[in-house]
Amino acid sequence: MVSIAAANFARFGKREEDIFAISSESALPIVDKYRDAIDFVVVSNSYSGEFNDISGLNNLLTTHLAMDSVPSMRVDNTSGSGGSAVLVAKSLVASGEAENVLVIGAEKMTGYPTKRSTRIIASLLPPEERLGGPSLPSLAAFMTRSYIREFSPSRESIAKVAVKNHHNGALNPYAHFQSEVSLEKVMTSKVIADPLRIFEYCPVSDGAVSLLVTSEENSRSFGSKSARITGAGASSGTSSITARESLVSIDSVRESARKAFRASGKSPGDMDIAELHDMASILEIVESEDVGFFKKGEGWKALETGETSIDGRFPINTSGGLNSKGHPIGASGVAQTAEIYLQLTGQAGKRQVKNAATGFSVSMAGFGNNSTSFVYEVD
Amino acid sequence: MVSIAAANFARFGKREEDIFAISSESALPIVDKYRDAIDFVVVSNSYSGEFNDISGLNNLLTTHLAMDSVPSMRVDNTSGSGGSAVLVAKSLVASGEAENVLVIGAEKMTGYPTKRSTRIIASLLPPEERLGGPSLPSLAAFMTRSYIREFSPSRESIAKVAVKNHHNGALNPYAHFQSEVSLEKVMTSKVIADPLRIFEYCPVSDGAVSLLVTSEENSRSFGSKSARITGAGASSGTSSITARESLVSIDSVRESARKAFRASGKSPGDMDIAELHDMASILEIVESEDVGFFKKGEGWKALETGETSIDGRFPINTSGGLNSKGHPIGASGVAQTAEIYLQLTGQAGKRQVKNAATGFSVSMAGFGNNSTSFVYEVD
Repeated sequence: MVSIAAANFARFGKREEDIFAISSESALPIVDKYRDAIDFVVVSNSYSGEFNDISGLNNLLTTHLAMDSVPSMRVDNTSGSGGSAVLVAKSLVASGEAENVLVIGAEKMTGYPTKRSTRIIASLLPPEERLGGPSLPSLAAFMTRSYIREFSPSRESIAKVAVKNHHNGALNPYAHFQSEVSLEKVMTSKVIADPLRIFEYCPVSDGAVSLLVTSEENSRSFGSKSARITGAGASSGTSSITARESLVSIDSVRESARKAFRASGKSPGDMDIAELHDMASILEIVESEDVGFFKKGEGWKALETGETSIDGRFPINTSGGLNSKGHPIGASGVAQTAEIYLQLTGQAGKRQVKNAATGFSVSMAGFGNNSTSFVYEVD
Repeated sequence: MVSIAAANFARFGKREEDIFAISSESALPIVDKYRDAIDFVVVSNSYSGEFNDISGLNNLLTTHLAMDSVPSMRVDNTSGSGGSAVLVAKSLVASGEAENVLVIGAEKMTGYPTKRSTRIIASLLPPEERLGGPSLPSLAAFMTRSYIREFSPSRESIAKVAVKNHHNGALNPYAHFQSEVSLEKVMTSKVIADPLRIFEYCPVSDGAVSLLVTSEENSRSFGSKSARITGAGASSGTSSITARESLVSIDSVRESARKAFRASGKSPGDMDIAELHDMASILEIVESEDVGFFKKGEGWKALETGETSIDGRFPINTSGGLNSKGHPIGASGVAQTAEIYLQLTGQAGKRQVKNAATGFSVSMAGFGNNSTSFVYEVD
């Protein structure tokens, strides 16, 4: 069984340092402790070429970390890169190709006008749909309108995702935003793509996070606190937005979760905590339904009852989610695994959920054209 | 045991089509035959962002191929991307995470001034060394000078790599260059980085190639001609050129080959054919020594004796190598595996080597800061 045996963050946010420094900040505590054991480095990163004029980031990083002989590669899946990188690390360990894999998720995106960042990220849309001018934020607005039309949630319940996740982020020393926001402030903030407002979107962030992915046996011999990955599932959905039957459900999220639960022998109801890909507020709600935590059309009610709050029955995005923790593209999926690991091993500090023994994460690419889900357990 | 069960090329060269069309051209014959079986797509590509203004190429490709639910990811390791992608596919199959993986290696690089291409690719060099202005071609020239100083080969023997590989390329319908070149023409062609001349470098190419990576059992049940991957090895070396002890040996090539041979239980002397990463003529010679086919300093003699010619005792780069087949970055490593597969299964047409039952390939990143080696066998 493959386990996570260490996780460490470099704070997400606007960082002055370059991508090497941020990546190293996240990796060094793990490298210092496990240097002789690490035999593969998987770097989760999407846009080092576009944002940083760097290619082969993985090789430059092993050199930077003085791990010159350790093999490495870069894994990319846009916003879902982290899930793919963890899946590669898991497969390398499970197949015996490697024993102890250092996963580094990193992106350095700030320092450019938002328009340029948005344009770079929109390069993941099908060329024929890019011509029409949609960007990822506007697609989330379409989804919100469809969801409201179809299920009549209160508008406030959607905004409450941002309130909840900013509350959690304020408890997370690695989050981009570390202050609470009131419902009133969210609901009166600048409209980005009608009806969604600025506090309902993740910010553009720099950041990095590292994991040690290893076997359960190695983890035990290291004496590390560890969490097992008991199920993984990957799936795609069409990249074409216009070809989708529904805008209130994401095929790849649903299918990847189904595979991960089937592989683990667990069901959504068995989970204690979850990290979902809340690039926009509505996405947390839609995904919470698609993976099976709530019935379709009813996920928004959990925001009204407080069920998914950090002190609720089933906390979602205890890390602050992308919404408050930030979304350095290549780092985000790795950060989800890191958060579940920290929670399940009692290392989540002020945001610690008591007695959490099972967890779920879904790392989503683009606007849902690819997802990787994981189920985690500790004894 | 993991096997290659199919390979198909889209011709390398200057192509008018976009990267989707070229990739599909290589993948469709495999997709048509194995559509229901393929459960993962691994795309080997480095520079779709920089050259084509496209991110998330893997997801756009599954949509383009009407494989909307099949999960995918992009694997990058600059010039060595293909080796990493095949390693990921092998690990996905060996770990049970996938059964039948379609690997698509693709790059679309032409249409820009060579200076711009060279600058983009130089973004893989350490930032502090980029300031000094070296490019990959100039590093190969340094290597050539060091090799000549240390081992006194005839200058012609180095140029003969280009003569041999152009001869092989002329037999390969998928090669960028399909005509022979005389030693005299090579030796009097334009100097690119003294002492290396233009025919000794790979061209800038577009191209794609696809593989089906599966289990031996599945391959048998498909009734496919197949070749087993009996050993794999990955290793890095420092990205810093100035930090290297020697410029006539490449640590990552040596170490990755050692690992692959150890894993397979075979030795270099057991191999019938090999594909090496001949971005420049000198590299074929240096690598042929580093992986253990010849003693250090003696690889050049094989070009004099004709030992590594297609009708010699031990043919190297029957495909034409990067030198003549071309070097669409993300495709090159996948193309090596494809060539060995075609040779070992008797599908190599005019360049077929008789009775080849074992093969070796090394896919190298950058100027050797990362390599992935494979040993292949058929019964």
